[in-house]
Amino acid sequence: MNKYSPILQDLIQAFKNLPGIGIKSAQRIVFYLLQHDHTEKAVFLSETIQKSLETIQECQICRMYSEKETCEICDDSKRDPTILCIVETPTDLIAIENTMQFKGRYFVLMGYLSPIDGIGSDELKINQLEEIFKQKVINEIILATGTTVEGEATAAFIASVAETYGIKATRIAYGVPVGGELEYVDSNTLTRAIMNRSILE
Amino acid sequence: MNKYSPILQDLIQAFKNLPGIGIKSAQRIVFYLLQHDHTEKAVFLSETIQKSLETIQECQICRMYSEKETCEICDDSKRDPTILCIVETPTDLIAIENTMQFKGRYFVLMGYLSPIDGIGSDELKINQLEEIFKQKVINEIILATGTTVEGEATAAFIASVAETYGIKATRIAYGVPVGGELEYVDSNTLTRAIMNRSILE
Repeated sequence: MNKYSPILQDLIQAFKNLPGIGIKSAQRIVFYLLQHDHTEKAVFLSETIQKSLETIQECQICRMYSEKETCEICDDSKRDPTILCIVETPTDLIAIENTMQFKGRYFVLMGYLSPIDGIGSDELKINQLEEIFKQKVINEIILATGTTVEGEATAAFIASVAETYGIKATRIAYGVPVGGELEYVDSNTLTRAIMNRSILE
Repeated sequence: MNKYSPILQDLIQAFKNLPGIGIKSAQRIVFYLLQHDHTEKAVFLSETIQKSLETIQECQICRMYSEKETCEICDDSKRDPTILCIVETPTDLIAIENTMQFKGRYFVLMGYLSPIDGIGSDELKINQLEEIFKQKVINEIILATGTTVEGEATAAFIASVAETYGIKATRIAYGVPVGGELEYVDSNTLTRAIMNRSILE
């Protein structure tokens, strides 16, 4: 379909580039934004993207996105500096923050070890992580990488690095999800849940 | 969650403003765009929105979005000027264009009659439509408004206007969808399909 304006086509394409957005959603969004009463939202979107590209960078300590050199969490003196949670992505960090249970600090790998894609310890900036280890403030790292093969390998690798600094490495627990019915839980997860059973107190 | 940068929060909000995008999709899109290798896509999106807001307007003839005063379809001398298809939205126009079966021209109402929302014939610019009728070029209008109560009312209203100009008004056919199984078709549609049956040739 090339019967409509090139800029309109560009705009639809620009939204189609985004993850999870297909041609229908892109068209819907575009025609929504072009309505007169939504101009403000379109301007806000365009300007915020631009501002973000100009100002947002990786926190120099934990690699979370931040508009300052160091992020809000790293700057927060109330957070426990002795415990470090290591995650793959900023979204994982936010998911853990949303639990409001973790009061330590984070390190975001921005990926996982994947030699086939050329992602090794350099890309994950493990040396930056080691700089934190060298400060001898940390007692424990919680490895909250994904429960995929790559996530497991990444966790194992970082645990081995931590060991050389005498730091305890823990892994988030596997088990059945809260509120779930057992019959719908896959057998791998159920096996882990049984292996990791604990005494009722 | 206000632990992360205000600009990051703004950016997530800007995407959440869009139809069909919730908080999770917005986060996913934002962190996708912030990755270094996607900067180009982010710039393209931001710039295209801005350019669209500056240049895209309603075609002065058919009201479709266009970056010129009149759109590609209205400018195309190969299109049949005697038949006019009337649709509610630009997306409907595109859906019909995609069939590649309709060679006439369009008029986009940018909505449907809805007195309760204050949308009457002024908002739908029926007078602009009448200007087209007055040129006495059109033989037939195809009413391709939605099959909702409002769409029906809008079609009936426009048909009555067309009648005063001696223009034939037709309505797109109701019936069972192609490739569908009858048992899943609602009874209203099935009733219409039986009423509108045709002789096999």
